[in-house]
Amino acid sequence: VIPTVDPPYYAVIFASRHKGDDPEYAVIADRMMELAADQPGFLGMDSVREPGGSGITVCYWRDLASIRGWKEQAEHRHAQELGRQRFYSGFELCIARVEHRYAWEGQQP
Amino acid sequence: VIPTVDPPYYAVIFASRHKGDDPEYAVIADRMMELAADQPGFLGMDSVREPGGSGITVCYWRDLASIRGWKEQAEHRHAQELGRQRFYSGFELCIARVEHRYAWEGQQP
Repeated sequence: VIPTVDPPYYAVIFASRHKGDDPEYAVIADRMMELAADQPGFLGMDSVREPGGSGITVCYWRDLASIRGWKEQAEHRHAQELGRQRFYSGFELCIARVEHRYAWEGQQP
Repeated sequence: VIPTVDPPYYAVIFASRHKGDDPEYAVIADRMMELAADQPGFLGMDSVREPGGSGITVCYWRDLASIRGWKEQAEHRHAQELGRQRFYSGFELCIARVEHRYAWEGQQP
């Protein structure tokens, strides 16, 4: 969910290509989601993955310092290493400053 | 693919929940991808969708003017309307200014 706090805040957009369907991946991904949510400055996360294919995860943070904190978190660093060795054939990420948010909640039934 | 042009540029992050698996959706989504790629200021797009579930599309643009141009494009406006009426149960989007990009291409075999 894109956070409802007032902008500006930051998004880390992570686009990954997966080697295959390693059953360990979901375990690590779930743990990282749980761990990130406990980090200072965490505002929210959206993650979508096509089976066996590509994934996009967007993680929202209060500021650049909280992104740096998460990047350096020990258990997360270990997971990053595992990702490069085992799960991903490649990935890209970018850091972007969110300036505007819009939501459409749909027609209520 | 996250663009390799020098930042800053802009990302539109679109997170959608789908009503179901409407076969028309893929046709419209492909056409919009093709149309967006022809718009001035278009830099790239990544889109991932879980069957029957949630989707994330990130579209990259040179500046805010090109995002506005795409938003107002006539055929795209029609598709936006169709999305609200038929495909989505809800969506969120945000506009963010990309400040930093990083890529890891994996070990070569």
